[in-house]
Amino acid sequence: MSKRRAVVGVMGAGEAATAEGLALAEELGECISSRGWVLLTGGRPAGVMAAASRGAARVEGHLVVGVLPDEGNGEERQSTAVLDLAVFTGMGKARNVINVLSADVVVICGGGGPGTASEAAHAINAGRPLILLAVPPVWRDFFCSLGKGVESASDVEECCRLIEARLRRV
Amino acid sequence: MSKRRAVVGVMGAGEAATAEGLALAEELGECISSRGWVLLTGGRPAGVMAAASRGAARVEGHLVVGVLPDEGNGEERQSTAVLDLAVFTGMGKARNVINVLSADVVVICGGGGPGTASEAAHAINAGRPLILLAVPPVWRDFFCSLGKGVESASDVEECCRLIEARLRRV
Amino acid sequence: MSKRRAVVGVMGAGEAATAEGLALAEELGECISSRGWVLLTGGRPAGVMAAASRGAARVEGHLVVGVLPDEGNGEERQSTAVLDLAVFTGMGKARNVINVLSADVVVICGGGGPGTASEAAHAINAGRPLILLAVPPVWRDFFCSLGKGVESASDVEECCRLIEARLRRV
Amino acid sequence: MSKRRAVVGVMGAGEAATAEGLALAEELGECISSRGWVLLTGGRPAGVMAAASRGAARVEGHLVVGVLPDEGNGEERQSTAVLDLAVFTGMGKARNVINVLSADVVVICGGGGPGTASEAAHAINAGRPLILLAVPPVWRDFFCSLGKGVESASDVEECCRLIEARLRRV
Repeated sequence: MSKRRAVVGVMGAGEAATAEGLALAEELGECISSRGWVLLTGGRPAGVMAAASRGAARVEGHLVVGVLPDEGNGEERQSTAVLDLAVFTGMGKARNVINVLSADVVVICGGGGPGTASEAAHAINAGRPLILLAVPPVWRDFFCSLGKGVESASDVEECCRLIEARLRRV
Repeated sequence: MSKRRAVVGVMGAGEAATAEGLALAEELGECISSRGWVLLTGGRPAGVMAAASRGAARVEGHLVVGVLPDEGNGEERQSTAVLDLAVFTGMGKARNVINVLSADVVVICGGGGPGTASEAAHAINAGRPLILLAVPPVWRDFFCSLGKGVESASDVEECCRLIEARLRRV
Repeated sequence: MSKRRAVVGVMGAGEAATAEGLALAEELGECISSRGWVLLTGGRPAGVMAAASRGAARVEGHLVVGVLPDEGNGEERQSTAVLDLAVFTGMGKARNVINVLSADVVVICGGGGPGTASEAAHAINAGRPLILLAVPPVWRDFFCSLGKGVESASDVEECCRLIEARLRRV
Repeated sequence: MSKRRAVVGVMGAGEAATAEGLALAEELGECISSRGWVLLTGGRPAGVMAAASRGAARVEGHLVVGVLPDEGNGEERQSTAVLDLAVFTGMGKARNVINVLSADVVVICGGGGPGTASEAAHAINAGRPLILLAVPPVWRDFFCSLGKGVESASDVEECCRLIEARLRRV
């Protein structure tokens, strides 16, 4: 029987992402592919989603998945990050729930806006392991107050060690 | 043409609600009905949802709506808060998005767990006015950092004044 | 304890509705309100949804609910059928599932397009009583082949008798 | 820029599938993988979903995706068809909409129950090319009455030729 590869969800800012956040996301995506994990993001051609996908797609054997808010009709169908598979939900912001449920571990990369915050909250609500990578202190304070076992990392290397440890426990 | 009544969404802790949070929710529900507004909650027979519904149902002319996570089959259909209308979504936690989109103003009553946090985040994301009623300081710090125009109230009277002001601007 | 009013879901063609289908829907909506039931439709300002809502809103004590596909932002918020309550889902066509789950009985009024067909199929799938009112023979053949207990009516009076009988058995 | 592989959605009966339907689905899955297409199904370990996945997984280079109705918590996470990627939606029957939107072509394999019928209806509603493989005549009559361009195939070879022709036109 084939065992499925682990799925790591990476969430963060879209159009509002900083140069620093984008660099981090790209490095993280590459690291995820290198370890043989599947990268899953919100799939839009912007911000952390696009940067992580780009990084992951550089590594041979990558599987880069995007779960999109729109219906994927007409030009929407190609208007995505670099993806191996696009899941079109037509469910708007409710697709954030699917992102989180489908991931074995969720990483919040560099903070973000309220959409990213909803994903961190849903991850805790669904019992998915949550790692906060280089987020603002107010994010760490809030999400650590919401759930046990929320972890923080300050760089990609530490983040990947934490993912690995979490996947061993799943 | 009939003008629809304004819809106030009230979200907060479920089974983990404190006695203080429940008392607040019940008073808030009553206040919402008294002003002629529709009360909308997550509809389950627990916590802030149930208490707010109970308070609202005491006032003549109430319209109390619950948007539930389950499919409403068999016994689930009656296993709700006191409601005039039950909307069964079958969509689990994604129903939190519907709660927020359907409300003209969203009130977070007394803080809560990650489900409640996801609703506050979705409210900001969707541009719905958000009022934090008697939430812990870490909630106020976090959600005020996420969006402009998030307001705080320390008691039900102040909260209803803020709702009223927001509805006039809608 | 307050007992909820029964909810009757009415589904049918949108923009493509015929004059005959609209007349039928309006009469059906009025009949539903007259019996004290809640009318639930897809809520858009078109076709069977709009006509049934209009008919229902003529009767005192009506409760007319629409479950809409869009997010209810800006002008979308008023762009609905005549409703007492608008539930904005932001879930596109997946809101068809919510319509059906929330109804105690589902009526397909005059046939329709593939959206209406999906609602008839979801009704059978979810075990909701399904009544086909004045639909084309090919609809009757198909849906009667899919599930037991699918019933047909040729006019509104017969349809309301069937609804009543079904509600007594719920 | 990497071009995404085409995604073929295969839908059909679950637990109620016949031996004939299962054999057809397995052959179809294998054919889909052989052509380099991604197979997408409802992902449950039953019926046409499981058989098509099994067939597809036999071919080197396969990508077999399942979009599941449940949240993927605990044991649910492994209780799937043979998949390379499991998308857990937590949205019950509304996941049928996602299946259809994410597919470039939808095949209904051998007919099925009301869940399968809802997927055929959603496919027409969303404008996805729909191919009916070895379905009962009442299915063909109904869905051909609902939308133009619905095609029928009586065996897997003909079905794959039709898929290929449709993908060239996308």
